Amino acid sequence: MKENKYDEERFFEKYGEMPRSRYGLAGAGEWPALEPLLPDFSGKEVLDLGCGYGWHCAYAAAHGARSVLGIDLSEKMLAAAQEKNAAPAVTYRRCAMEDLVLPDSSVDIVFSSLAFHYVRDFVPLVQNIARWLRPGGAFLFSVEHPVFTAYGSQDWFYDAEGNILHFPVDNYYYEGPRQAVFLGEPVTKYHRTLTTYLDALLTNGFRLARVVEPPPPESMLDLPGMRDEMRRPMMLIVSAQKPA
Amino acid sequence: MKENKYDEERFFEKYGEMPRSRYGLAGAGEWPALEPLLPDFSGKEVLDLGCGYGWHCAYAAAHGARSVLGIDLSEKMLAAAQEKNAAPAVTYRRCAMEDLVLPDSSVDIVFSSLAFHYVRDFVPLVQNIARWLRPGGAFLFSVEHPVFTAYGSQDWFYDAEGNILHFPVDNYYYEGPRQAVFLGEPVTKYHRTLTTYLDALLTNGFRLARVVEPPPPESMLDLPGMRDEMRRPMMLIVSAQKPA
Repeated sequence: MKENKYDEERFFEKYGEMPRSRYGLAGAGEWPALEPLLPDFSGKEVLDLGCGYGWHCAYAAAHGARSVLGIDLSEKMLAAAQEKNAAPAVTYRRCAMEDLVLPDSSVDIVFSSLAFHYVRDFVPLVQNIARWLRPGGAFLFSVEHPVFTAYGSQDWFYDAEGNILHFPVDNYYYEGPRQAVFLGEPVTKYHRTLTTYLDALLTNGFRLARVVEPPPPESMLDLPGMRDEMRRPMMLIVSAQKPA
Repeated sequence: MKENKYDEERFFEKYGEMPRSRYGLAGAGEWPALEPLLPDFSGKEVLDLGCGYGWHCAYAAAHGARSVLGIDLSEKMLAAAQEKNAAPAVTYRRCAMEDLVLPDSSVDIVFSSLAFHYVRDFVPLVQNIARWLRPGGAFLFSVEHPVFTAYGSQDWFYDAEGNILHFPVDNYYYEGPRQAVFLGEPVTKYHRTLTTYLDALLTNGFRLARVVEPPPPESMLDLPGMRDEMRRPMMLIVSAQKPA
């Protein structure tokens, strides 16, 4: 049974208070690093795995995508997406990305923002994506960084006075579920190594175009706590292509 | 002035006691992960940056390389290489890899084992390597993992009883020198992010073939301390190609 945390009332409400939920793409710290890596959407068929509120679906549609299919496991997220980010070219569908069935060579761009760390098995998903994409198609995703998921708690290590000492890494090579705390709630996330994220693409027919660990944007460094984000990587962005 | 730690008597002696110094490739924990990634050396012109004892130079020669140029900053290391790993096809030359001058398109394979973390500026070196390589040439290197170099000490974080708690990560996005302790001696190593290691290749004309964080080999897991090596990544191996 896949965990569907975002349909729990309390968690969903807290998620709704995050800057990225309230302000969309502009509220997401990684957006300045992510946007330049986005492919040209004009006339393209796009798939968004774990679309959430649908901000990226709306962006793709606004930038000329012919069709956008946004997939999410959470009914509440999809209702919010329909309300905030509906567009004629965009379809939202409730489905676990692991269970999605699509024809071979049927999409031009596969996108996923911060969702793959909820998926237990990455390699079969990558193999599906390789099949769904047309030759020459683009695959762009962000995910929580292996440094961020390895230990489990996703919290800093503090001294007795509550000052941050450093970020802990442990059990790095032991891939699998972690009981993380996100928005004060327990959530299962799956840790996997960088090798798995990148090498799974390289050994399943993808060509890597870019690999980026987005630091906090300069403009946000003076906001509370943002300078701490320079102390450990939290996200990984990977841009890949299926060779033409 | 580049640090030349390996020419300090005490450090050089301690290095000589490491399994990889005494037993060569078989004594290096990453060898089982590295060897399958090595390109075909037959008839090739090979450059080894930071060749140390010359184990990889001898391996390339034994596997048919037409010529192998091993570069190192340390006189003592090169003397040891000449003694342990001389071969008709192999030339050892004393030179900092940052200062090396070679004709464009003059080598087929550039190799480097655990040496780039001693180099201050990675990008100019990558640009040189891209020029030195012939089209279709291979670039394979191992380096200390950014998780391992970020904090500085390269030691675990322990509890009051001396038990390992976890590995500390800090100052990840602040690239630059770290005062590491290696073999009980202070050594300057340069931390850089994974983004820099990989994206510098992708944005300077290389195609990534493989990215591997070698875990300790199964066969060594029961040796003292080896199971701890499952708790954090220590090395990164990158295999790349200059497009033909």
